[in-house]
Amino acid sequence: MVKKVALAYSGGLDTSVCIPILKEKYGYDEVITISVDVGQPEEEIKKADAKAQKISNKHYTIDAKEEFVKDYIFPLIKANGNYEGYVMGTSVARPLIAKKVVEAAKKEGAVALAHGCTGKGNDQLRFEAVFRQTDMDVIAPMREMNLTREWEINYAKEHGIPVEATKSKPWSVDENIWSRSIEGGRLEDPSFVPPEEIYEWTKSPEEAPNEPRIIDIAFEAGVPVAIDGEKLGGYALVKKMNEIAGENGVGRTDMIEDRVLGLKARENYEHPAATVLLAAHADLEKLVLTRGELKFKKIVEEQWSEMAYAGLVDDPLFADLNAFIDKSQERVTGTVKVKLYKGALTILARSSPNALYSEDLVSFDSQTIDQKDAEGFAKYHGFQARMYRKVMEK
Amino acid sequence: MVKKVALAYSGGLDTSVCIPILKEKYGYDEVITISVDVGQPEEEIKKADAKAQKISNKHYTIDAKEEFVKDYIFPLIKANGNYEGYVMGTSVARPLIAKKVVEAAKKEGAVALAHGCTGKGNDQLRFEAVFRQTDMDVIAPMREMNLTREWEINYAKEHGIPVEATKSKPWSVDENIWSRSIEGGRLEDPSFVPPEEIYEWTKSPEEAPNEPRIIDIAFEAGVPVAIDGEKLGGYALVKKMNEIAGENGVGRTDMIEDRVLGLKARENYEHPAATVLLAAHADLEKLVLTRGELKFKKIVEEQWSEMAYAGLVDDPLFADLNAFIDKSQERVTGTVKVKLYKGALTILARSSPNALYSEDLVSFDSQTIDQKDAEGFAKYHGFQARMYRKVMEK
Amino acid sequence: MVKKVALAYSGGLDTSVCIPILKEKYGYDEVITISVDVGQPEEEIKKADAKAQKISNKHYTIDAKEEFVKDYIFPLIKANGNYEGYVMGTSVARPLIAKKVVEAAKKEGAVALAHGCTGKGNDQLRFEAVFRQTDMDVIAPMREMNLTREWEINYAKEHGIPVEATKSKPWSVDENIWSRSIEGGRLEDPSFVPPEEIYEWTKSPEEAPNEPRIIDIAFEAGVPVAIDGEKLGGYALVKKMNEIAGENGVGRTDMIEDRVLGLKARENYEHPAATVLLAAHADLEKLVLTRGELKFKKIVEEQWSEMAYAGLVDDPLFADLNAFIDKSQERVTGTVKVKLYKGALTILARSSPNALYSEDLVSFDSQTIDQKDAEGFAKYHGFQARMYRKVMEK
Amino acid sequence: MVKKVALAYSGGLDTSVCIPILKEKYGYDEVITISVDVGQPEEEIKKADAKAQKISNKHYTIDAKEEFVKDYIFPLIKANGNYEGYVMGTSVARPLIAKKVVEAAKKEGAVALAHGCTGKGNDQLRFEAVFRQTDMDVIAPMREMNLTREWEINYAKEHGIPVEATKSKPWSVDENIWSRSIEGGRLEDPSFVPPEEIYEWTKSPEEAPNEPRIIDIAFEAGVPVAIDGEKLGGYALVKKMNEIAGENGVGRTDMIEDRVLGLKARENYEHPAATVLLAAHADLEKLVLTRGELKFKKIVEEQWSEMAYAGLVDDPLFADLNAFIDKSQERVTGTVKVKLYKGALTILARSSPNALYSEDLVSFDSQTIDQKDAEGFAKYHGFQARMYRKVMEK
Repeated sequence: MVKKVALAYSGGLDTSVCIPILKEKYGYDEVITISVDVGQPEEEIKKADAKAQKISNKHYTIDAKEEFVKDYIFPLIKANGNYEGYVMGTSVARPLIAKKVVEAAKKEGAVALAHGCTGKGNDQLRFEAVFRQTDMDVIAPMREMNLTREWEINYAKEHGIPVEATKSKPWSVDENIWSRSIEGGRLEDPSFVPPEEIYEWTKSPEEAPNEPRIIDIAFEAGVPVAIDGEKLGGYALVKKMNEIAGENGVGRTDMIEDRVLGLKARENYEHPAATVLLAAHADLEKLVLTRGELKFKKIVEEQWSEMAYAGLVDDPLFADLNAFIDKSQERVTGTVKVKLYKGALTILARSSPNALYSEDLVSFDSQTIDQKDAEGFAKYHGFQARMYRKVMEK
Repeated sequence: MVKKVALAYSGGLDTSVCIPILKEKYGYDEVITISVDVGQPEEEIKKADAKAQKISNKHYTIDAKEEFVKDYIFPLIKANGNYEGYVMGTSVARPLIAKKVVEAAKKEGAVALAHGCTGKGNDQLRFEAVFRQTDMDVIAPMREMNLTREWEINYAKEHGIPVEATKSKPWSVDENIWSRSIEGGRLEDPSFVPPEEIYEWTKSPEEAPNEPRIIDIAFEAGVPVAIDGEKLGGYALVKKMNEIAGENGVGRTDMIEDRVLGLKARENYEHPAATVLLAAHADLEKLVLTRGELKFKKIVEEQWSEMAYAGLVDDPLFADLNAFIDKSQERVTGTVKVKLYKGALTILARSSPNALYSEDLVSFDSQTIDQKDAEGFAKYHGFQARMYRKVMEK
Repeated sequence: MVKKVALAYSGGLDTSVCIPILKEKYGYDEVITISVDVGQPEEEIKKADAKAQKISNKHYTIDAKEEFVKDYIFPLIKANGNYEGYVMGTSVARPLIAKKVVEAAKKEGAVALAHGCTGKGNDQLRFEAVFRQTDMDVIAPMREMNLTREWEINYAKEHGIPVEATKSKPWSVDENIWSRSIEGGRLEDPSFVPPEEIYEWTKSPEEAPNEPRIIDIAFEAGVPVAIDGEKLGGYALVKKMNEIAGENGVGRTDMIEDRVLGLKARENYEHPAATVLLAAHADLEKLVLTRGELKFKKIVEEQWSEMAYAGLVDDPLFADLNAFIDKSQERVTGTVKVKLYKGALTILARSSPNALYSEDLVSFDSQTIDQKDAEGFAKYHGFQARMYRKVMEK
Repeated sequence: MVKKVALAYSGGLDTSVCIPILKEKYGYDEVITISVDVGQPEEEIKKADAKAQKISNKHYTIDAKEEFVKDYIFPLIKANGNYEGYVMGTSVARPLIAKKVVEAAKKEGAVALAHGCTGKGNDQLRFEAVFRQTDMDVIAPMREMNLTREWEINYAKEHGIPVEATKSKPWSVDENIWSRSIEGGRLEDPSFVPPEEIYEWTKSPEEAPNEPRIIDIAFEAGVPVAIDGEKLGGYALVKKMNEIAGENGVGRTDMIEDRVLGLKARENYEHPAATVLLAAHADLEKLVLTRGELKFKKIVEEQWSEMAYAGLVDDPLFADLNAFIDKSQERVTGTVKVKLYKGALTILARSSPNALYSEDLVSFDSQTIDQKDAEGFAKYHGFQARMYRKVMEK
């Protein structure tokens, strides 16, 4: 019987050398490669496809762009998702990619699942949180073999794997429609000021247009549906927002991040659409949700984000949290006006049919409550602190 | 016996007409006025002083600027204090002002405490949370009498109170060293885009300098101590930072805010120093605190901020929270490099002697942990979610 | 036009004298009385009905027993509801009673709603949180008139209201199917040991049977459905459990409670069924829910309980929380074996088709994870604390 | 140079066979054994000492009983520490034992630290969280070798290690002054009702005295200091309370517990003193702490307990939490009256000089607040829920 392994394939050197390694070192007969399009640059997808056609036994390129936005990014927006300030593009893409790999593996009758992550980062954990739900073996060649780039290049050449002539890049990059991460090399030093060249999605604020760009973003039930009145599908909307905000220098993060395993790492990110959509969504919520909802939802959001960051999206708790969030989002419908200018985002105005503020409400209110009622409230405000003071004075 | 009342005095029309009202309507013989300098414009303090000398029985002008920064603003920075996004300048000033009023009242043998707040906002609650800890009566004339501006102006004239010739301003403003709030009038409509003229501390981003300003901010034990290497006292440091950041258009907030009584209100704020110092402080913490500290401190910060916003700083819980925070801040020492440019703030770099990240630590780490150890960790990551899946598949 | 007011009616002296008061003092033409049966003693319901027939213009007795258990008690069980240790019978009954009063008021065309609560406790807040959602006037005669019992008795006699000959009871009692509260009089002193006579639902442990009673309680989706294999409807099940547990002296609480307004009060409660059902439910959850669910659900439960205690069940946050809880409860199906003996409840055993523990799972587990994997996990356990130590040692 | 390893030694078969294993398999020249007395049965300590004198190169028996109570148990009481219902005796003892082992290792110039835990439980993690803070090697022979009891007995005989003639016990037990745990064998099955014989510290409720025992427990600053008026040192107080409560059948737990690695396990515990002291402490807090403190401290307690359970007591967050707790406990002074009877604990009464409730306070209160003030409060109670309703009705 033919022993097959399914490999999450990016087209890069690491996952490419995994193909012969899985055969030679791990004894598999066939390697099925799967590339998943979650909005990374088109050219990257094409290259991966072309390369895989040559060197793997069978290759899948799966277009998951709309699914990614609808099932992973939109829930993240509803959850105001962020982990220590990071908008989590890579984090939420990994479970989707892993699920597509599992699907292909089942279809092909594979007996093992493989990824090309090292043992240092978060991605191994995110892939395996999905992979290990199956009964298939899980293989992480990069984690088990301490390979140098030189060794990989030689090995690739010996096995007929095309190697791009480019010299080793000074930093490593991961991209999908929600964010682009840049890490490694000199950036690892938290006190090193990153050079402008690391950014590709966002213009330098200094070079951004001299005129501000003002946009209206419409939401329905917590999800963005239109820009400046133009209705757009999920992927198209995020893509367009990336262009608009990136052009105006908006959407960069430079931060220290706590990885799941515990190491702190300096990370740089670009995410123009994420910055704008998350800010607008949070602003709209303040108009619509009750104070109690806003306060408690923050706690829910922290938990949601921590789980999304760690790739623990299949714990039933994640579904419980989403039930809370979805219920709260039913009324989060309205429009937010945002100004983008040379790296700065400013909220200008917002409106909603479900606003808990309106002149009508204020006048309704003043029929039933007058200023003197506040005196009664004031007398109970800080009541126990006063008792405490009385007790302490004795 | 002479019946005295102590009045928190701002110099404005409301607190000025309170003086004769407290005598005529409430029957007090003397009104002691107290103005507290917490960094509002110097001219405002001077005017209030001059006016009070004429119309009150005795006037105190108390310089609490350094105390305000040291005992209220610096704890707020350590707590990353904010309420729904607001940096809480007015909120944390009120208890200090109230305490100064109580002190003066006790010195003068007053039997009552008064403030000029209406029954609609937060300030009445903040004043009274302090006032009601005493056995003195608490008087809020504005809350009990629904006065129009016209009535007040006539009443002032009749009682020899100087009234400035300025026409009624379209919005109401409150200022201290930490923030300037602008509210009321057309701004109440959440969908009204505020005109540039409401801002006084911050340049319009479009008119800010074309060159970015890069600054180094040094912290010791969670508190800012120097800008670009220059050591500065608390008040001087915040003042200077207000100038630098305001010049570069940084530090505006436009938001919907939930007042303590429950009404939502649209608020506009300026707070250049607050924006920069809070961002820098939070960034430094990520380098120094453990992941567990960062995560739990967020919960502490929410509670701290809610209490600070409501003026509940004398509940013993507030002291308990500060004990937690102070302990966590012992190591928050280091420097953060920040770029200010046309309204945008960007963190560029940071360093600390207490960083939980360094090349040394990474190499120490690699002696004791290798990549394969992550495999063991990965097998337990998401363990119960896998069990759940197995159970559900049955 | 006839001006009608709808009054929540208990049959006691307070709500009885409210009837003429609402006419004489408040000027209403007719008083509609509404008694709601939520499981208080049958005799009490009957008396209230008989009395109201005589003295009110129109009376409703509404049987809400099953609705109370299904829509208020069962959600409380799913939420492991308790406020500072109190199982909240009175708290969750008030909104239901208030809603029934509003329904009757609308049907009758009343223009006002009234309750007989004083201004000291929680019930006024719970009633009015519902009442004030309407446009009707809200009247609380007891809060506005400081009436003595003597005055009320005389007033009742003058108005032909039958007064029971019983002398004033030393404590005040409230009962429904979920709990019986006893408060007031000497019990107010936290250091007073309550006499045995205050308890009616629970036998004294010393007088309970000498043989333990062991019972099996079955749950489906978080809700109790059977006792010892006998399927029972909601109300019948709670009633039976009250009898069984009460007979064995189980289900008393003596506590200091923080009322919504801020006053601490000593409270005594009886709630045999609540004690058993809540303990069994919580135990079953530990077998079925993931650790993450158990931990986060505690936070949800605290919020749920605080809102239920305050009667804030119509804030949309309450619905959001229930969405979380209902999702988590889908799998909470199984049986718990409990021993009741002279006041002590002991959990003996539990089982569930959805248990996250089983021998099968353990053996599945040992195929994929061996002991050595724990070494990798152990190396990352406490990782940042080690880094911290290294940094501090420098 | 002599290569020494320090071994945490219990006197049991596992840690005894570790001695020759550490020499033969791991190549150490000398094994230093350390037994730490944290209140396990005296005889056990003596046996371990006698055995170690024969078979280890050097043995320490360290009396840490008072230190354990003062530095680990008393903070736990102040924190109302429990993990999913478990009072955490074993959990909080492990770091102390590990620290004593490290101290001895340093004194002896050892280069490695060893423990006898398997790779399945929590104790390996607790030991290593301390051990790995040093630069010494960490050895866990039981985790690396899958030894059967037969193999161990033979190996022991071959190496002159005395083996007790007792047949293998059906469950495994761990004891210290705070709790006794019983696990394994048939108890692993959550639906198996445990036999009475597993308990040694607590009488069966059925066989407990027919007269209830009523005791007064005095606390100072959150810590128990006297029983029935008799001042007792920490260890003596816990010991006496174990006897009193155990005699009356109080202090058993039967539960499903989530281990740190993720496996759920059925656990049985005895902890008479813990049950009584924790219940009394929590009751006293309700009299003394503000509602805000009670509510927020619950969150602090959850975090504290989770870290204590996992042995993460050296993370700086643990010190931050203790700073909060210690501040809150300054006023937790007073006396609680408790009844113990046939397995049931009942709180009867409590008093404190720092009570936030007293008749004096109530009368002070009624001078400044009257019932009508509650109307103002009531109008704001549920304010936003009413607005929400108005909006939804449109």
